[in-house]
Amino acid sequence: MLRSIDLSPVSLELYEAALGREVVDDLREAARPLRGRRVAHVNATAYGGGVSELLRSTVPLYRALGIDADWLVIPGTTEFFEVTKGFHNALQGAELDLTDEVKATYLKQNRLIAERFDGEYDFVFVHDPQPAPLRTLTGAKNARWVWRCHIDTSQPNPEVLAFLEPFITPYDAVVFTLPDFIPPDLRHHRFAIMAPAIDPLSPKNMTVPMELCQRIVAWTGVSLQRPLVTQISRFDPWKDPLGVIAVFQEVRQQIPGAQLALLGQMALDDPEGWSMYDTIQAEVANDDDIHVFTNFTGIGNLEVNAFQCCSQVVVQKSIREGFGLVVSEALWKGTPVVAGRAGGIPLQMGEGIGGFLASGTTDFVDRIVQLLRAPRLAQELGTSGRASVREHFLVPRLIREELALLASLA
Amino acid sequence: MLRSIDLSPVSLELYEAALGREVVDDLREAARPLRGRRVAHVNATAYGGGVSELLRSTVPLYRALGIDADWLVIPGTTEFFEVTKGFHNALQGAELDLTDEVKATYLKQNRLIAERFDGEYDFVFVHDPQPAPLRTLTGAKNARWVWRCHIDTSQPNPEVLAFLEPFITPYDAVVFTLPDFIPPDLRHHRFAIMAPAIDPLSPKNMTVPMELCQRIVAWTGVSLQRPLVTQISRFDPWKDPLGVIAVFQEVRQQIPGAQLALLGQMALDDPEGWSMYDTIQAEVANDDDIHVFTNFTGIGNLEVNAFQCCSQVVVQKSIREGFGLVVSEALWKGTPVVAGRAGGIPLQMGEGIGGFLASGTTDFVDRIVQLLRAPRLAQELGTSGRASVREHFLVPRLIREELALLASLA
Repeated sequence: MLRSIDLSPVSLELYEAALGREVVDDLREAARPLRGRRVAHVNATAYGGGVSELLRSTVPLYRALGIDADWLVIPGTTEFFEVTKGFHNALQGAELDLTDEVKATYLKQNRLIAERFDGEYDFVFVHDPQPAPLRTLTGAKNARWVWRCHIDTSQPNPEVLAFLEPFITPYDAVVFTLPDFIPPDLRHHRFAIMAPAIDPLSPKNMTVPMELCQRIVAWTGVSLQRPLVTQISRFDPWKDPLGVIAVFQEVRQQIPGAQLALLGQMALDDPEGWSMYDTIQAEVANDDDIHVFTNFTGIGNLEVNAFQCCSQVVVQKSIREGFGLVVSEALWKGTPVVAGRAGGIPLQMGEGIGGFLASGTTDFVDRIVQLLRAPRLAQELGTSGRASVREHFLVPRLIREELALLASLA
Repeated sequence: MLRSIDLSPVSLELYEAALGREVVDDLREAARPLRGRRVAHVNATAYGGGVSELLRSTVPLYRALGIDADWLVIPGTTEFFEVTKGFHNALQGAELDLTDEVKATYLKQNRLIAERFDGEYDFVFVHDPQPAPLRTLTGAKNARWVWRCHIDTSQPNPEVLAFLEPFITPYDAVVFTLPDFIPPDLRHHRFAIMAPAIDPLSPKNMTVPMELCQRIVAWTGVSLQRPLVTQISRFDPWKDPLGVIAVFQEVRQQIPGAQLALLGQMALDDPEGWSMYDTIQAEVANDDDIHVFTNFTGIGNLEVNAFQCCSQVVVQKSIREGFGLVVSEALWKGTPVVAGRAGGIPLQMGEGIGGFLASGTTDFVDRIVQLLRAPRLAQELGTSGRASVREHFLVPRLIREELALLASLA
């Protein structure tokens, strides 16, 4: 048996209270043809990263809608996850030495996963490359199969894609996050596009009284009396944290008293992250206006929520980005965002909605200063951003799309 | 210059609102003789562990009371902190090979710290052994000096104590947490005893609406419809997490549906913690009723707060304990505690107050079952626990004691 993740039930009433009756009625309508059907979501990890966060929200909602849904997490060895991390990076365009040993490690573990996959399901969603061979190795088992790729695979390493393609072909549909992410060389009879979404009831996004948010932020030493600019992201060169610091140093010359907070979740298996963290710490060591916080300094989901609420501007200076859902998280709090034109970020910030897209240091500096100097504009943009997230980037929309796909495959 | 930690101002009005006018009036009274005086607290780390949590609460309160207080953190190399970790363990009774090299590493870094200590202060609180030589190496500098030891030094390694004693002697006073913690062989002309305290306004202890707490807990997969027993502690043999699991397995036989949550903050420099974590994970791998959460699965201060609020019983099965302030944290939420007779725990749980002291598996099982079966008793004990914490274990009491000591030294 694959490990099934414990999930507490959610009540549709809570979503109704947060988002209105119509949203929940639409969900019920979408679920009607699938009531009582058995759906499995299979991925590689119960915590860490966007996919596990999504499943923690969507699977309980499936259940609340009367669908018999499970979230199954595959087992893996360190060696296996090193291989799949290499695949992940290669599908984003990095080099990989695809040796026979690498392939053997991947397939051996996937055969074990397939043996343990013994439930009876009508539909199986397989997420990302780690368990992609599951469909081939288990046979169809009377289910419809969807491969859901969350990675920017617009310029994949061709060798790795070619190796994986035979495992992807037998799926009944493959889903990408953005049209651009579909690998040009991948052939399939059924592509679907679904943007990810945030959960307005998760600890990271739920409504927390402003007074609590302020106390959470004040506790860290950040002043509530001075302007606050925040970037929340892993410490990864593609998120350009050093670029954010450079931008901030110029912003501060124009807005004395401004503060910068960098919040990052550190992972154990991420030596580059730790090395970047050390570089950042050295860079800001003598700068009292720049604060760096991680899960080693008490930062959890609620603290991220509080910082998004209490910042005057949220920055996302990504050079490369998957979907960049953290932009929607900030906008959902009504906080304006200045962000790079990367991945799914432009999709979340249409012209005049939510803030400004920017390129290069000067542009970022100007836009941040503009927002800090014009609180009314900042508020208007934040408000339009929240409205846009409500319409396009909350989990009920994603679930409707997933259910429509399943219904079309049934 | 030593690094001075940024702290946001707190307002006495918030404490007044939370604890009543009289508490704050007493604080003002205690601070009167020290208004305008300069106080430094010096310790080894800005985050992680009880001392930094305490200072994050007390130093802003000093300032709100009109005292010019700083919190200074010493610099250190990995080698230095390995040495001081060895000292810490040795002062708790462990063996240590106190070589000349170890001594040299300790003194060399402390000379550097002393050089950088250049502020003008009327009072200096030096916390724990890491910067203990500061008083000797800088001279008195017209200040009164207090060494504040937070460790259980009741049975210290005699060699390490003898090495440190000459650095401790020149302090004007030395403070321990419990009378029992004073090393029998340590001679000093002025001992003081001060129990630590929790901050009712910190993210870990502030009042969070129950509905938010429940959503935070439910998000982790723990059911709110079933009884929940929680232990919050590092994964350390002295906190006996495996013993807690054994206890829980017997509890569950009598209370079907019961759940156990183990919450632990992982630190990077704690290989024993990681190894214990792996052991626990292996132990509970196939047990859906036992949940293990860490700062790698999104657990921050607010999540700890929420689990303490939503648990029916909090367990602290410590075999050895410093003060065990986590007991007061749980009691502050009105949640009853079943805890081992170790360190400062009995002091926090007088007869009939807050829950039960227990020894051995059977005793723990019986007491937990008793509380799960008798919600009214559980509530009464929780209520008496909260009242006791309010009276004895909140930061205003600690600050009054610190200020009284300083005033007596002036």
